[in-house]
Amino acid sequence: MGQETHEGRIRTLVEDWASAVRAQDMAGAVAHHSADIVMFDVPEPLQSIGIDEYRTTWELFFANSPGGPGSFDVTELQITVGDNVAWCHALIKVRDSTARLTMGLRQENGRWVIAHEHHSYPWPLTSS
Amino acid sequence: MGQETHEGRIRTLVEDWASAVRAQDMAGAVAHHSADIVMFDVPEPLQSIGIDEYRTTWELFFANSPGGPGSFDVTELQITVGDNVAWCHALIKVRDSTARLTMGLRQENGRWVIAHEHHSYPWPLTSS
Repeated sequence: MGQETHEGRIRTLVEDWASAVRAQDMAGAVAHHSADIVMFDVPEPLQSIGIDEYRTTWELFFANSPGGPGSFDVTELQITVGDNVAWCHALIKVRDSTARLTMGLRQENGRWVIAHEHHSYPWPLTSS
Repeated sequence: MGQETHEGRIRTLVEDWASAVRAQDMAGAVAHHSADIVMFDVPEPLQSIGIDEYRTTWELFFANSPGGPGSFDVTELQITVGDNVAWCHALIKVRDSTARLTMGLRQENGRWVIAHEHHSYPWPLTSS
């Protein structure tokens, strides 16, 4: 299978994940992830390890977004794909803010899974 | 070349980069990076694109760390390596704090280069 096809599959996976978050669909939000995923989320804790702790980060997010986040839109998605390993980064529009997203992926039994996510906002620079 | 050897080369690269940051050695801090690197740093801007903007993020960090950061120590480094693409994540001890680090890498002419970095701290959760 060619590199373009892998990139297309990963792009679809990321868009499906974002759609699930918008819909507050927990099953969809955790559907594409490895059992050993390591998540660096916007709020504490420092890291969440494994799919159960990953799910907990979305429980927190959904609880703080009654009625849904309003937006959770992936832009500027750039994907770098190898034979069995890939990573990507993007910006995510969440309501009036823009977060940064990085994902690390690997293939398991011919299927791409997300094994790492890093979400953050930049700190504002204090003006001098 | 086997996967273990690639992982070892990337581990050495990350440790060399951290050593350069500790020494405020700008040439070393940008030595292992692609021309098109995309950096998501702790402070603004939202993203820094290209090696010149990447260098600027270290100018800011070094300017805010007179005498050096004191510590910039990589822990819990986990590397996922494919044929030509790899990613890794780690925690970085910076003085009394712990930051999260994600890197995306690719091979160029048989050499691993860092093409993406994401640095952040988690936001403190407000207690209820």
